[in-house]
Amino acid sequence: MRIARFTTGDDPKFGLVDGAGEKIAEITGDPLYTKIELTGDTHEVADVRLLAPVIPRSKVIGIGKNYADHAKEMGGEAPAEPLMFLIPNTAVVGPGEPVIIPTDLTSEVHYEGELAVVIGRLCKDVEPQDVAKVVFGYTCANDVTARDLQRGDGQWARAKGLDTFCPIGPWIETDLDTSDLSLVTRRDGEVVQDGTTADMVHDVATLVSHASKAFTLLPGDLILTGTPAGVGPVVAGQRVEVEIDGIGVLSNPFVDKD
Amino acid sequence: MRIARFTTGDDPKFGLVDGAGEKIAEITGDPLYTKIELTGDTHEVADVRLLAPVIPRSKVIGIGKNYADHAKEMGGEAPAEPLMFLIPNTAVVGPGEPVIIPTDLTSEVHYEGELAVVIGRLCKDVEPQDVAKVVFGYTCANDVTARDLQRGDGQWARAKGLDTFCPIGPWIETDLDTSDLSLVTRRDGEVVQDGTTADMVHDVATLVSHASKAFTLLPGDLILTGTPAGVGPVVAGQRVEVEIDGIGVLSNPFVDKD
Repeated sequence: MRIARFTTGDDPKFGLVDGAGEKIAEITGDPLYTKIELTGDTHEVADVRLLAPVIPRSKVIGIGKNYADHAKEMGGEAPAEPLMFLIPNTAVVGPGEPVIIPTDLTSEVHYEGELAVVIGRLCKDVEPQDVAKVVFGYTCANDVTARDLQRGDGQWARAKGLDTFCPIGPWIETDLDTSDLSLVTRRDGEVVQDGTTADMVHDVATLVSHASKAFTLLPGDLILTGTPAGVGPVVAGQRVEVEIDGIGVLSNPFVDKD
Repeated sequence: MRIARFTTGDDPKFGLVDGAGEKIAEITGDPLYTKIELTGDTHEVADVRLLAPVIPRSKVIGIGKNYADHAKEMGGEAPAEPLMFLIPNTAVVGPGEPVIIPTDLTSEVHYEGELAVVIGRLCKDVEPQDVAKVVFGYTCANDVTARDLQRGDGQWARAKGLDTFCPIGPWIETDLDTSDLSLVTRRDGEVVQDGTTADMVHDVATLVSHASKAFTLLPGDLILTGTPAGVGPVVAGQRVEVEIDGIGVLSNPFVDKD
């Protein structure tokens, strides 16, 4: 299933998106917490505004250097254990929403296309073989990073947690084999990252298990699984698309803060 | 005012605590979101269980090395700009609740007594002179840290964000001049930190302003303002108390995860 959160002008609603990504069948509540029931209303995807498919009540966990080629381009090696950092929910925006570059804080913003895992159940200390039971689904994410702040601050809270720096979407795909998915990032149409989730150093099961051993995970928590090689700058006026096989395309324009 | 969150066995309630810290006058709702109205019921503090006075819906922002003497004992200098890191809301526990040491992850846990700021209003880009308008109040915090994970991980998400590693309380004091407050930490009764908020490198107004320039702050967000010198180990079976002048005492036992 593909589950979208959207608005037709008033309160956010949830719906099931068809395979072509053209129609949404509205459902009665948030499927993270309630059984899926159709309301009977349907919409054209083109006629609604898609929102971030989930706003975490607790946390977004990022994973650093989880593709060997990316670790290398950053001047290091992939760590033996997953390297976790936190992004606040105030950074999350949806498909189509602008990423706003605070030009007073940074002059070097990079895109990072990533597969994001959406947690479905409250859980702790989950073993890798049980991870499938606690995963609700997957979406695309752009782990936007102020590279200059990342270097200068040491801790990555600001560099990766600035308002609007965590676009996710376009919807959540609940049925997905993540072992070998094409992950392509385009900047103004040009392919800048062309990877596969098969190249993750630590796979989804390992990452979720690892995170759950440190933190209680709540429904709606997100784990961003790291970015493949090819990160690079993005400036105001450009648009970045993250496309993952079996999910869809997350597309966001970048603008300067006025 | 001193605002406590507490339970008498069922759903959490809020109340006003008297100056002696002995009686609670129950109020109708969460004062972060609703006007304060007394229900008419009162309780003895000793008869209720105090809870974490707030559970942030968005974030706990920690500040590293904000007292020069502590920066020195950590082998460095206080940074020119506040050094921010994030703690997930799943780490927050209340007064009296045990801090659970995950012995499979760490063998070196330190206490860090701190003054915590509770944000009262949604805000962004607040100038220092306007910070008082967005602060709801203050409470005590223990920024419990797995020092070995902090050294090993580089990013501090795990070291400071493990479940139960962010005790806060005993209540929120809304009227407080934070310019020179005694901050004392005791481990099993022995004074191990004896500082004053006058020694902060960046004061509360500077810290809140700085945080608000990176992140939208939401009601209930917390900013932990850093710890004075004297951090040190705490092990299972010990109890740590953080006492701040004008607020009260936050006391938590430490236990090993079984």
